[in-house]
Amino acid sequence: MPTADPPLTGAELVTALRGLSHRYWGTHPFHRRLHAGELSKAELRRWAANRWYYQSILPQKDAAIIANCPLPDIRRQWLPRIAYHDGSANGDGGRERWLRLCEAVGLIRDEVLSERHVLPGVRFAVDAYVTFARTRPWLEAVASSLTEMFAGHLMRQRVADMLANYPWIGQDDLAYFTNRIDAVSGEGRDTIDIVVRHCVTRAQQEAAIAALSFKCDVLWSMLDAIERGASHDPA
Amino acid sequence: MPTADPPLTGAELVTALRGLSHRYWGTHPFHRRLHAGELSKAELRRWAANRWYYQSILPQKDAAIIANCPLPDIRRQWLPRIAYHDGSANGDGGRERWLRLCEAVGLIRDEVLSERHVLPGVRFAVDAYVTFARTRPWLEAVASSLTEMFAGHLMRQRVADMLANYPWIGQDDLAYFTNRIDAVSGEGRDTIDIVVRHCVTRAQQEAAIAALSFKCDVLWSMLDAIERGASHDPA
Repeated sequence: MPTADPPLTGAELVTALRGLSHRYWGTHPFHRRLHAGELSKAELRRWAANRWYYQSILPQKDAAIIANCPLPDIRRQWLPRIAYHDGSANGDGGRERWLRLCEAVGLIRDEVLSERHVLPGVRFAVDAYVTFARTRPWLEAVASSLTEMFAGHLMRQRVADMLANYPWIGQDDLAYFTNRIDAVSGEGRDTIDIVVRHCVTRAQQEAAIAALSFKCDVLWSMLDAIERGASHDPA
Repeated sequence: MPTADPPLTGAELVTALRGLSHRYWGTHPFHRRLHAGELSKAELRRWAANRWYYQSILPQKDAAIIANCPLPDIRRQWLPRIAYHDGSANGDGGRERWLRLCEAVGLIRDEVLSERHVLPGVRFAVDAYVTFARTRPWLEAVASSLTEMFAGHLMRQRVADMLANYPWIGQDDLAYFTNRIDAVSGEGRDTIDIVVRHCVTRAQQEAAIAALSFKCDVLWSMLDAIERGASHDPA
């Protein structure tokens, strides 16, 4: 809720945002099992095919932010995210790298694209994220992207752990993560800069914190649904 | 209204879309006076400052189309439109070229950016266009862009007529149009291709025709408001 309290300093706002790191999906039990090498092949496939739905929607989420933003410099700064995920041609980009991982764990590409393996709970969570970007002020939607502050460390660990624990997965199959590590290597610094610069009232700052909290809920809920989704696995 | 009639052939659909050319704002009385050299400096300023609002909103309109489109190849094809208008840096792009024309006709840049000269009727029409792109299926919003089929001829004529009839306006001041003529030199061929390829039912085809008709109404209404806007001119 907005309050009449004075605005946080930039440093206080960053501290408050970083303070949500324990809510990030890095500590979710399903991710712990993934990293520990405890997932079955069926579980790996379920994870990859469901997270695909999240990956596939990111360009539309980022375009929704641009569609709501009246500031050309922010639009210019945000635009490369769309090209990053969609790529410059078929067979390129983040979505293609995720599809490669799907195939490495034994999924059929067309089945992934058909979304037939996407669990209802995953769809609801991801769709809520896109709806948030479409309907909330652009600054809140930008703040919701700040989970990338927490992503670099987790993805570096994931590449090491998956290579160690799932011997049928090769380095090239993990190109989504190795490429993405570089993309978020600033731990979201540019995005933090936007949020600190444009959240000038306490109400805006609290809305930004709430937006990041919401995004943590989106990601966590996806893994909850994936963890419980065994009954939907293909025979 | 959707009907049970069989789909048009591609050629029939293109003919139906092109058949709306008489509704394009090229024949609006205010445009005729502009081309004939009959506008006062105050009218030229009113025109430029109000059309600015349309120009400024185009990146958000195009991002809304991408936000609604689940097809990566269409998103990739549409993405350069955002960069075209916003430019790659401040001082670049279609919006900057329009601001240059505003300054050439005697407007103050900051006043244009403040939107204080934007007439209510212009704002309503332009906002309706953005709302259309945000809320209608992406294919209809793409079809609404097909006024670019009619734009090349009008803009070539405009450059010649404005240079001939408004001696204080130079060739460089008209960079928006000269640059845009190149951009639409295919008379919207790529956009027509998308519409023909994806409008496969008669209902979709009729929705595309209705979308282009709606867009003609948006542009025409802008000029109606500008034509009648003398009472809002700055003293």
